[in-house]
Amino acid sequence: MRSRTWVGCGLVAAAAIVAAVVGATRTPAQDRNAERKAIEQVLLEQQEAWNAGDVEKFMTGYWHSPELTFSGAGGVRRGWDAVLARYKRNYPDRAAMGDLTFSSLEVRFLGPEAALVLGQWHLSRPPDNDVGGVFSLVFQKVPNGWRIIHDHTSIVPPEPL
Amino acid sequence: MRSRTWVGCGLVAAAAIVAAVVGATRTPAQDRNAERKAIEQVLLEQQEAWNAGDVEKFMTGYWHSPELTFSGAGGVRRGWDAVLARYKRNYPDRAAMGDLTFSSLEVRFLGPEAALVLGQWHLSRPPDNDVGGVFSLVFQKVPNGWRIIHDHTSIVPPEPL
Repeated sequence: MRSRTWVGCGLVAAAAIVAAVVGATRTPAQDRNAERKAIEQVLLEQQEAWNAGDVEKFMTGYWHSPELTFSGAGGVRRGWDAVLARYKRNYPDRAAMGDLTFSSLEVRFLGPEAALVLGQWHLSRPPDNDVGGVFSLVFQKVPNGWRIIHDHTSIVPPEPL
Repeated sequence: MRSRTWVGCGLVAAAAIVAAVVGATRTPAQDRNAERKAIEQVLLEQQEAWNAGDVEKFMTGYWHSPELTFSGAGGVRRGWDAVLARYKRNYPDRAAMGDLTFSSLEVRFLGPEAALVLGQWHLSRPPDNDVGGVFSLVFQKVPNGWRIIHDHTSIVPPEPL
């Protein structure tokens, strides 16, 4: 009996290992879908905040940390405060802010708590001051949800006619 | 005896769970250091290949996949072939390629098999045609090592004097 008990014990332990490993690393499609929607929701809320003229609310999509980084033709900005200051300087009023649209979003998961998001941005500023381009965002899942921990944004000049 | 055996069995199973979870998710500092060096080595080899005028060898730092992406002021390029074509068009000869230096590298792990790497690039092209800027690279560990799966590169114009 003892030996059969210990065989049973081995099977229980093996099953526990499999369950624990599978549980620790599983990324079922339905979980990913929910995470993808959560990330897209952050960007949708950013767009809505921008278009309501609320830059501080727009900034809630970013990780509120001195380690937040923002890269572009101006080099690298470090820290949430510096990123906010850049937005306020570059877009001082509603006319400069225009009407923001994000499009062509692609979410690529890099692990259970990180994702790369590519997309396009466009500011409609009639009659002839539109601007737009592409961005690469790294999202990480922090205690209060998915947040942008790094943003690399470029202006893409319109194609010559 | 049976009941003590099963208590022992429970302990074995619990220990197995702990070992499996710790084993599956551990990221000890020494492992991270080795991974960081492996990533930096990819960039060092890219720099050496570029400075030997070997764009194809430079390209081995990139994931050889149609899913590779490269973003910048030209929008998004998709696929290893398109990225190679862009380098060949923008840097048709040794004079255009100049002498490449990567600097200020920062490796931020996003999980056991993904990392964000920020850095600066500079092409020395005497007497007065230097160019440089910043990049954001997403690395992923694929079967043949760490490779860039996404590159977002910007030119940063020199500060006005």
